[in-house]
Amino acid sequence: MTSVSVIGKGITKFGKTNQTIKSLMLAACREAIVDAGRPKVDAVFVGNFAAGSLANQEILGSVLTNELGLGNVPSVKVEGACASGGIAFRQAYQLVKSGEYETVLVAGGEKMTGIDTKTVTKAINLAMDNDSNEGASGLTFPGFFGVLANRYMYEYGAEKRHLAMVALKNRKYAVSNPIAQFRKNTSIEEIMEARPITDPLGLFDCSPITDGAAAVVIQKGSLGVEILASGQASGTPLMQEVENILHMPATRESANDAYKKAGIEPEDVDVVELHDCFSMTEIVAIEELGFFEKGKGWKAVEEDLTKHGGTVPVNTSGGLLSKGHPIGATGISQIIQIVDQLNNHACNQVDNARIGLAQNLGGTGAYSTVHIFKKKGA
Amino acid sequence: MTSVSVIGKGITKFGKTNQTIKSLMLAACREAIVDAGRPKVDAVFVGNFAAGSLANQEILGSVLTNELGLGNVPSVKVEGACASGGIAFRQAYQLVKSGEYETVLVAGGEKMTGIDTKTVTKAINLAMDNDSNEGASGLTFPGFFGVLANRYMYEYGAEKRHLAMVALKNRKYAVSNPIAQFRKNTSIEEIMEARPITDPLGLFDCSPITDGAAAVVIQKGSLGVEILASGQASGTPLMQEVENILHMPATRESANDAYKKAGIEPEDVDVVELHDCFSMTEIVAIEELGFFEKGKGWKAVEEDLTKHGGTVPVNTSGGLLSKGHPIGATGISQIIQIVDQLNNHACNQVDNARIGLAQNLGGTGAYSTVHIFKKKGA
Repeated sequence: MTSVSVIGKGITKFGKTNQTIKSLMLAACREAIVDAGRPKVDAVFVGNFAAGSLANQEILGSVLTNELGLGNVPSVKVEGACASGGIAFRQAYQLVKSGEYETVLVAGGEKMTGIDTKTVTKAINLAMDNDSNEGASGLTFPGFFGVLANRYMYEYGAEKRHLAMVALKNRKYAVSNPIAQFRKNTSIEEIMEARPITDPLGLFDCSPITDGAAAVVIQKGSLGVEILASGQASGTPLMQEVENILHMPATRESANDAYKKAGIEPEDVDVVELHDCFSMTEIVAIEELGFFEKGKGWKAVEEDLTKHGGTVPVNTSGGLLSKGHPIGATGISQIIQIVDQLNNHACNQVDNARIGLAQNLGGTGAYSTVHIFKKKGA
Repeated sequence: MTSVSVIGKGITKFGKTNQTIKSLMLAACREAIVDAGRPKVDAVFVGNFAAGSLANQEILGSVLTNELGLGNVPSVKVEGACASGGIAFRQAYQLVKSGEYETVLVAGGEKMTGIDTKTVTKAINLAMDNDSNEGASGLTFPGFFGVLANRYMYEYGAEKRHLAMVALKNRKYAVSNPIAQFRKNTSIEEIMEARPITDPLGLFDCSPITDGAAAVVIQKGSLGVEILASGQASGTPLMQEVENILHMPATRESANDAYKKAGIEPEDVDVVELHDCFSMTEIVAIEELGFFEKGKGWKAVEEDLTKHGGTVPVNTSGGLLSKGHPIGATGISQIIQIVDQLNNHACNQVDNARIGLAQNLGGTGAYSTVHIFKKKGA
């Protein structure tokens, strides 16, 4: 079995910037290549969702490869909504594992600010099935996850304050993360009383609009944090076809795929980054990833089981909610936080972290990737 | 060495249609799956350039996978400008060859008509590096290839009529292709006198705006036409960085990579589909692919060496110029024509075709893929 490991990483500050997508992504890529010790790169995989609509730029694979001076190596952009970064990483990993390439640069990025809200909202909705009555009716992502949250509270007895607890935890973690978009301390009261976005979700329950880029270099061998397994699954992009809105089959199936390949159980995971596009999504994800029983995620949050000292610390980077959510960059930034944790120099370091997991969701459950990592030499 | 072969194909009529990108692509996918004998599909790769900008739809991987009822299998959209289809095919092939998947559906599509010309032109220009003075100055694709054509004529003594001969050949082939966009016979005079687009290129020298979709099913084993090799290279997306505008390094390097892996020489190729986005591009490509010496491609065209009975018949489908160029579909449609040739039931069938080659270009040389195929049992 060929080992593949993460040997370099680079990430920009997440937030609002005047930089272009090209300059953001170049910054992250250069940092990753230098961090990896400037190896010969055999291919470039780019995760990006909507630069065509938001940043007037496709062909990011070629643009970055050329500007970085990497020569004529194969390059490509990969799109899978908010899971674009996770899918790009997966493909690069699969092709290194198979021996097709030895060293690959994987970069993710998105430029979302400085554009009028209507254009951004329309671009985000490209991750719905728009050739459907749902697309025509104007269903949005906060709308979908708001329905999910209401149903969850009705079925399992959770309350709005449990959503707020997730947002507060992630904000507290973000305070220590130098690249996070929101680093100002807050309180449960401020979160509960914030401007409503879609009932029951308030401003702090929703991930923000963010610019940012992240990149990693992966390589055959055991020089860095080892990639133990990759899982990916698709799910329906249509709300009307969801069998049970409280389940996210793509999340569950991508996780089961990865656990099986890695030969581990959820109990073996020491630290997790997961896709908290909304506070509610984090609660469903900790259930679907097998850390807590279905319907008990809110209880785990109430009992601090997703913090340091609990069952498993979740989103120690601040998560999408407070670190920010530059769509194409998100999946790679999650992996960087896990790599930092397993290298023992993360913000909000988890003691003795040996196994880490990163989960990246696309759309309302249209895609999910799960990657499992192991500390070097562990 | 694992064999991988093309076991099913589906393609829509190319041209103007009122269908959505989803319905076009579903039609091609369903035809391919039925043609393949309805195998269990393990993953879906979609090649598409700009559906976000042109068709209000991203997440085509998930949309198609769900609508086709393929379950929770991994899916993704791959973008590499006009080479999106070729790159999607390559990735699927690499992952079947490596044993990651056994059977994969690869679909390409684009919906380009019914939209105002300004929007379409802007979308096509997403395949330039727009964070550059070239992007700002408004360089277009006809502009780039017009400069190339003028320089080629100046250096090598070719004339406008040699460009017209390429366009005429491809139109004559398209007349016999039931899915081609333009099937009306024409003459060298009509082509020479057609409306100028950018000097020296006239209307018939430029590929059209087209809707269409194409799909193939590939599988481990030797059930169908065998995929012998895949080559891919990147090149600069900036005109100012092109060392010699008469060379297309990405085309040459992707071809050399593929020849080497297949263990063949250009002389072994019996039939070719290549990326004639402009008539001029075909002449450069037959040189870069090694069929004719640099600067002699126009002579080969004059001497009918790219037709039946010549050195190697090129673009027997009608090519992008007359079959049409629905961007994401193009790379897959080229492969379908080669597969049909090697299965001995193509339009404009080449007698005893045993080895075929398909070359797909992205941008002004930003990407190129080359795939080499072998007749079943040959």
